[in-house]
Amino acid sequence: MSSWLDKVKWNTDGLVPVIVQEKGSHQILMHAWMNRESLSQTVETKKAVYWSRSRQSLWTKGELSGHYQNIESIRLDCDFDTLLLTVRQDGNIACHTGRHHCFFMSLVDREWLVTEEILKNPEDIYK
Amino acid sequence: MSSWLDKVKWNTDGLVPVIVQEKGSHQILMHAWMNRESLSQTVETKKAVYWSRSRQSLWTKGELSGHYQNIESIRLDCDFDTLLLTVRQDGNIACHTGRHHCFFMSLVDREWLVTEEILKNPEDIYK
Repeated sequence: MSSWLDKVKWNTDGLVPVIVQEKGSHQILMHAWMNRESLSQTVETKKAVYWSRSRQSLWTKGELSGHYQNIESIRLDCDFDTLLLTVRQDGNIACHTGRHHCFFMSLVDREWLVTEEILKNPEDIYK
Repeated sequence: MSSWLDKVKWNTDGLVPVIVQEKGSHQILMHAWMNRESLSQTVETKKAVYWSRSRQSLWTKGELSGHYQNIESIRLDCDFDTLLLTVRQDGNIACHTGRHHCFFMSLVDREWLVTEEILKNPEDIYK
C-alpha cells in the first residue's frame, strides 16, 4: 500500500534531499530534506512538509509565516534518492530572510554577491 | 585568496549538495555533490566537476560521455550549504540513462511513472 514510499532510497539518516521549484517562474526556491513521514504528509495534505535537521522535527513550510508551498508535482530521480517538487508559493516569499528564494548569492569574480532584494522584513513575517 | 571557498558550509564529509539547472529551459537536470576541490576546479575550468560519493573521487561531468556541463552561473543559498548551478548541457543529455534530465519519475496516484523518454541508448553513450 505504501510501496511508492519504499521505492525512495532514504539515506542512513532516513532522509532525501528535496529541490523546490516554483511553477510558472521555474525558479529554484529552496533546498530541503524529507523523511518518509514528511513525504507521506506532503502527498496527503498537498502542502510541503519537510524534515528540519536543526530542530529534528517535521516542519510544515509556512506554519509560522503563512507562506505555504502548494504541491503541483513530485518527481524522483534516476538514483531514487532525490526529490523535485513543483510548488505554488504563498506570499511570494520562500526564504526566511524575506526574499523570494534562498539562492540569493551569486559568485562573481570569486566573490559572493547578494543579487536578490528583501521583499519583506523577517521581523514582520515571523511575529 | 580563497575566502569565497571558506564561506561555503561544507558538511561533515566536506560536501555540499548541488542543484543543476539548465539555462533557457530552466529544467532541473540533476542533483549532485561537490567538495572544495571540485568547486574550485568548476570555477577554474568553467565546466561542472562534482564529487562522486560512490567512487570517492572527483568527477568531471561528461568526461566519458562528452556531455559536459558549461557553467553559466553559480549561486549559494541563505544557509551557505547548497549550490545552484546554471549550465549549458552538451549533447542535450544529462542523465546516465540517456534522458535529458534525471527527474524522469512522476508521482501519480501514489505510483512513480516514467514521464521522460530515452534520447540515446546508454550503451551508445558510454563505449
